[in-house]
Amino acid sequence: MGRSYENENCSAARALEVVGERWSLLILRDAIFRGLTRFSEFERSLGLATNVLASRLDRFVAEGLMELVVSSDHARPLEYRLTAKGLDFEGVIVALTAWGDRWSAPDGPPVKYHHASCGGSVTVDLRCSSCDRVVRSGHVLAATGPGNRGAKVPRL
Amino acid sequence: MGRSYENENCSAARALEVVGERWSLLILRDAIFRGLTRFSEFERSLGLATNVLASRLDRFVAEGLMELVVSSDHARPLEYRLTAKGLDFEGVIVALTAWGDRWSAPDGPPVKYHHASCGGSVTVDLRCSSCDRVVRSGHVLAATGPGNRGAKVPRL
Repeated sequence: MGRSYENENCSAARALEVVGERWSLLILRDAIFRGLTRFSEFERSLGLATNVLASRLDRFVAEGLMELVVSSDHARPLEYRLTAKGLDFEGVIVALTAWGDRWSAPDGPPVKYHHASCGGSVTVDLRCSSCDRVVRSGHVLAATGPGNRGAKVPRL
Repeated sequence: MGRSYENENCSAARALEVVGERWSLLILRDAIFRGLTRFSEFERSLGLATNVLASRLDRFVAEGLMELVVSSDHARPLEYRLTAKGLDFEGVIVALTAWGDRWSAPDGPPVKYHHASCGGSVTVDLRCSSCDRVVRSGHVLAATGPGNRGAKVPRL
């Protein structure tokens, strides 16, 4: 897989360390929005090679995005269940889908996301916590945060 | 790179076709938030192999996320400038960073995002367009949209 991102002191890079491999985000999408938990379900849904799927699921368990659940009588297949950390990836997938809907969905969105409690459509917004307005593209600046170790200071 | 996502009728998968390769998102991050436009700047910032960087930038130009700008007198290096489509990836990167800040930034966020016009911090919200509330993790349902060709209907 080439050089890792470990020298990048950046939360986006750290997130990509976990989910940046090919297929990882689609596995999470199927777990979060389709409720898949079993190896055979992911395999059937995505059609990817068994060894690749196994290594991605193992990684999610190791990184705490999923936990492996064994039925008490061992009669049912293992389940890979999302943890809070894994479920929290929902926002990234909705944002990624929204971009794809805007720029590469000539027939309209293949999937729509709805709010479970009221049925309204779910959108992803960049919002300013100070003026409470939606922040438009190109109106975000990056600045050094408390966890910066001085290695990679963004240019403003 | 293995099997492509082309059988996936899903906007997230289509977005990953363009930016799912290793390094792509970090190149976009540097373009969007650090203002980098030149080959040598990306190379210095990320330290990745020249051939990998070249292929990623070429792909962004081919897919319309960047355009190649040649100075009129050819005296300055080529620039890879973000288009509206490329700049629109901002939301995905902020969402990815927010997840990394929550789950893998023990020293606090290395980078903070601010609203250019008022300086407030920028957050990414899933919001319901009907009840206007912030949608919490696990409260999103996926349903078939107008662009679904029937191949992959999400389970609800």
